[in-house]
Amino acid sequence: MKIDGVPYRTIWVNEDGRSVEIIDQTALPHVFRTVTLKTLEDAAAAIRDMLVRGAPLIGATAAYGICLAMRDDPSDDALDAACRTLAATRPTAVTLRWALDEMRGALRNRARDERVAAAYARAAEICDEDVAISEAIGEHGLALIREIAAAKPPGEPVNVLTHCNAGWLATVDWGTATAPIYKAFNAGLPVHVWVDETRPRNQGASLTAYELGHHGVGHAVIADNVGGHLMQHGMVDLCIVGTDRTTATGDVANKIGTYLKALAAHDNGVPFYVALPSTTIDWTLADGVAEIPIEQRSGDEVSRIAGRTDAGDIATVTITPAGSPVANYAFDVTPARLVTGLITERGVAEASREGLARLFPERAGEGA
Amino acid sequence: MKIDGVPYRTIWVNEDGRSVEIIDQTALPHVFRTVTLKTLEDAAAAIRDMLVRGAPLIGATAAYGICLAMRDDPSDDALDAACRTLAATRPTAVTLRWALDEMRGALRNRARDERVAAAYARAAEICDEDVAISEAIGEHGLALIREIAAAKPPGEPVNVLTHCNAGWLATVDWGTATAPIYKAFNAGLPVHVWVDETRPRNQGASLTAYELGHHGVGHAVIADNVGGHLMQHGMVDLCIVGTDRTTATGDVANKIGTYLKALAAHDNGVPFYVALPSTTIDWTLADGVAEIPIEQRSGDEVSRIAGRTDAGDIATVTITPAGSPVANYAFDVTPARLVTGLITERGVAEASREGLARLFPERAGEGA
Repeated sequence: MKIDGVPYRTIWVNEDGRSVEIIDQTALPHVFRTVTLKTLEDAAAAIRDMLVRGAPLIGATAAYGICLAMRDDPSDDALDAACRTLAATRPTAVTLRWALDEMRGALRNRARDERVAAAYARAAEICDEDVAISEAIGEHGLALIREIAAAKPPGEPVNVLTHCNAGWLATVDWGTATAPIYKAFNAGLPVHVWVDETRPRNQGASLTAYELGHHGVGHAVIADNVGGHLMQHGMVDLCIVGTDRTTATGDVANKIGTYLKALAAHDNGVPFYVALPSTTIDWTLADGVAEIPIEQRSGDEVSRIAGRTDAGDIATVTITPAGSPVANYAFDVTPARLVTGLITERGVAEASREGLARLFPERAGEGA
Repeated sequence: MKIDGVPYRTIWVNEDGRSVEIIDQTALPHVFRTVTLKTLEDAAAAIRDMLVRGAPLIGATAAYGICLAMRDDPSDDALDAACRTLAATRPTAVTLRWALDEMRGALRNRARDERVAAAYARAAEICDEDVAISEAIGEHGLALIREIAAAKPPGEPVNVLTHCNAGWLATVDWGTATAPIYKAFNAGLPVHVWVDETRPRNQGASLTAYELGHHGVGHAVIADNVGGHLMQHGMVDLCIVGTDRTTATGDVANKIGTYLKALAAHDNGVPFYVALPSTTIDWTLADGVAEIPIEQRSGDEVSRIAGRTDAGDIATVTITPAGSPVANYAFDVTPARLVTGLITERGVAEASREGLARLFPERAGEGA
């Protein structure tokens, strides 16, 4: 997507053909800066310190980490060590592990002098495949937005509500929840996005607002408390959110608070869509609320907030009373009954075992 | 209620019998300090600058503002001017206007040399009446908590979720939503409170957490996004919130986000109670969503957050990207169908025209 008119991906190989450039997302939304990765350790640190985040982008960065490692030492031992180092940066990231397996598969049976070129080729493919998936999600979602736009008075914007950042900054390009929005915007449809700030980490206020604004998409940041009121008053035409994990029955684990928006959408007849690459589907799970463990994170994420001071520095302030305990649950599960449809790279599925099985017949038996 | 073992009200007359002391709520939760009001202008500034907030406390402060004005000049002109000055501090505050009318009624037909004493007497009554209403709400709510506690294994805490601050700091003492909690705590029942931080102004994280913690009540601050997840997992036994305005049919306008918690409570079979003095009931309203206008406030409340730095200063940081628009709706309406009961000073009413009419037969005809 574009930042102030210039097209970007979140990760790319520089003109030297070796080093890899990323956007330092820890500095957003206050400062835009890129960082050059020249070594395996640079790539590992970028993931560990969350300069890159979002499952697809973490996978792509790990893939390029293997490329950088191979430049230094293309041996089997070095490949194994690099995979270990990168896997340890975010131990629970499934896509990271998948990307490392892909890279190992592409390199293992190759001569050492071919490994560098093969690594860059496979890493580029991983990125392009991710972009293709996002674009396919975007096209399927665009059809939904088009339909809603056609039913509104001409020129009136389609109001989309989204939660957290399932945007292009979380992927290589386009994003998942945002892909339909960018497709609609690029096609000249009038769209306006309500951006949940998404406490406690504020990924909506910092990342989604940044990327929409800099691409030129009309939007407004709102407190997470506001969406229900907007839906009561006809100010939301559809919700689109992402998902971290989806059950074979269509339950969706996503950033904490997603469930509350799904309830409000259901109560007000607003369509509630979840956009996802099919890789997030766990075909062995049948009951999201009962089976998906919800991570508890540090209370500091709730009690301490970072932002820029009026002097332009970045500072952190504490908002809770000294001594008050804080609880910080990171995700919640939205039951399939509240989900209008799952926008996948193959099309829009009903959020049910049958709906998903129709689109992914080759996977649907895995949980049985 | 107590602050670290010492009983307080939010407003009181000092030992000099003249000046009035308040807690400076703008400094909470980081600093506890009281401020002495010696003149009408001191009282007006305390309301205008939100050193005091919450309808009952604003009313009480305005009443004492009249006392202070009468000390300077007990004339009719001075009384009128003082009422005008105080009414202008928060033009939409209904309770403020009510308190001024009460004071005017108590003073108008009195000799000038009796007015100072009469003013202090009526202001003290207004405070005591508010405390009596809160205590009555507390006793009726306590019965509900007792019932839930009796159904749980002995010693297991009753988990209450609350939103915003309908606490003792918003009233003269006890609060509305918190009154049942303090009554339960003081009676030795095990209670634990989930405190919604309540973005954008964070009254939960700053005020409710402060007052519960300093009285000794177990609690945890949570992001507003968390309540649904807790209710899905049986971690909330009941919700109690306040209300700014209640329709004759039991719809409730309260701090933005209340509606989302009511939806989650309904979806999970968790009782959802609203605590209110009957003065918040507008007997002329029948449909809260359609009829109650929702105030939009400055976007700065969303984009800028104040807290204490690690160095101990109070600082404000901006969390949104430069140039991103912000929308800030202050309240939402929870339809009566989602409300289990209205806890009033006369008892618990079903949230319906019939339920309210049974408790307040003398008022129920007003909207007809």
